[in-house]
Amino acid sequence: MEEPANEEPRRISVIGLGNMGSALAKAFIMPENQVTVWNRTASKAQPLAKLGAHVAGSPSDAVAASDVIVVCVPSYAVSNTLFHATEVSGLMGGRTLIQLSTGTPQEAIDGAEWASQHRVNYLDGAIMDVPERVGTSDLIHFYSGRKEIFESHKPWIDHLGVNSYFAGENPGSASALDCGILSFGFGSWLSFIHGAALCESVGIPPEQFSPATFESLNRLVLPTLHSVSEMIGRRDYPGSIAKIKQYVTASDTLVRSSEESGVDSRLPATIADIFRTALNANYGENDLAAVFEVLRTQATSE
Amino acid sequence: MEEPANEEPRRISVIGLGNMGSALAKAFIMPENQVTVWNRTASKAQPLAKLGAHVAGSPSDAVAASDVIVVCVPSYAVSNTLFHATEVSGLMGGRTLIQLSTGTPQEAIDGAEWASQHRVNYLDGAIMDVPERVGTSDLIHFYSGRKEIFESHKPWIDHLGVNSYFAGENPGSASALDCGILSFGFGSWLSFIHGAALCESVGIPPEQFSPATFESLNRLVLPTLHSVSEMIGRRDYPGSIAKIKQYVTASDTLVRSSEESGVDSRLPATIADIFRTALNANYGENDLAAVFEVLRTQATSE
Repeated sequence: MEEPANEEPRRISVIGLGNMGSALAKAFIMPENQVTVWNRTASKAQPLAKLGAHVAGSPSDAVAASDVIVVCVPSYAVSNTLFHATEVSGLMGGRTLIQLSTGTPQEAIDGAEWASQHRVNYLDGAIMDVPERVGTSDLIHFYSGRKEIFESHKPWIDHLGVNSYFAGENPGSASALDCGILSFGFGSWLSFIHGAALCESVGIPPEQFSPATFESLNRLVLPTLHSVSEMIGRRDYPGSIAKIKQYVTASDTLVRSSEESGVDSRLPATIADIFRTALNANYGENDLAAVFEVLRTQATSE
Repeated sequence: MEEPANEEPRRISVIGLGNMGSALAKAFIMPENQVTVWNRTASKAQPLAKLGAHVAGSPSDAVAASDVIVVCVPSYAVSNTLFHATEVSGLMGGRTLIQLSTGTPQEAIDGAEWASQHRVNYLDGAIMDVPERVGTSDLIHFYSGRKEIFESHKPWIDHLGVNSYFAGENPGSASALDCGILSFGFGSWLSFIHGAALCESVGIPPEQFSPATFESLNRLVLPTLHSVSEMIGRRDYPGSIAKIKQYVTASDTLVRSSEESGVDSRLPATIADIFRTALNANYGENDLAAVFEVLRTQATSE
């Protein structure tokens, strides 16, 4: 079979050249792509210019130069300031905007609404990784929006990392998945550090705490996580493993242990508060995973 | 080689017959042990009596019957009420007390002090597991106190589960390790549930959130946990992976995401507070693990 004839160069603009934006632009620079970059502080574009990127003089020049616009700035507020300006928004119709700035699910939903009003093909993405991994097969990145837009752009998105993942048609999905996983990471990391501080207060060094905890990870923490996941999936918390009322007692002990040891008690105090909310909502006889019901009380599921 | 001659029956009393105490007593019942039990509500002793346990009429009878006294009651306060009574404390000299009630490291340290004053051999233990696993090789249990006491009692302690672990000579070590691992477990589980609630608010079901998160566990959460552990061990946080100031920004986004989605924001708000404390203590350019320094600020390391 013959190779298909070469297409025209794919024209991509990257707006925002912080560490992440620069890494994205760099990953796109290859013979089959024509990459244009713009950054408020122009000096950040110089290393990319040396690699072959075209440097635009303004956001509207960057938009005019390409079919696909990737934006990675510090916030959606900054992004909105750039794209809602008349000279830019007037050019956006028919182009594809890939929003990779960090934001909330609602900001992504609002972004998709604006894009729809301006006839812009919109994808909202989240890169859950450090800039150094952009362009490697390890990169974790999520996208949400209309699935056909994701599918048609996936070949070049995969230049960033082959494991691009479609999170859902709700434009907030990528951001929500990003936030959800970060929540899990932050909670795991800080509570590990809290445990290490508690142990050090009675002379157990981190070198002893860590292996004991990694051992418990496989024998206690992960099996429980899987049972939590399974119970949330079924929305059924029979109280067959350990009951919320026992978690209330144990987390109160954690708070007292922290206070008596002079270790910051904010994290266990919040954990105890949340268990108590579940207890007061009559989940005392249910399993741990019933906390899901009280955390989502005000959430409007779609 | 000949077997050593049978020793006299080992005499063990178990005080407190809740689910865990009953499981402990049951695991000790075997031909070579003479097991005595006592519980405030006498009816709980009946199932054990049927298995061959002797039922004591009072705590002092239970103490008088054995060389080794295992106590597993709801709190150290309850335990102290029992053991500090003159008719019991007067009998304790020369015996071994294994404290398996749930408490704080300081309560264990206080218990060891009392034991020392009454010439009692004292071990403080923590069982990080459900009663159903007592007597199985899977049980996770820690002990602290004088190492020679642990070593001399380890053969029969291992009837509870072969993986008994000596946590340290500081009597608070077992409790601290228990609390440290529980802190890690509680933080991991609740932040996972929080993430699932956040995702569900934009229509990502738990069945989609869980596999994505378990995937990130191996690619993001665990590698970071190992780097955190290594940095805490060295007490050196060069800022080479990601900086505290970036965690402040990201955790603020998590709080906003939760609030906008109607998901309880207490957990991310506390996480953001803790990162901000580290930022304000001039760890902004350091790695995540530098949080250790601010959590332990008031702790008196031994």
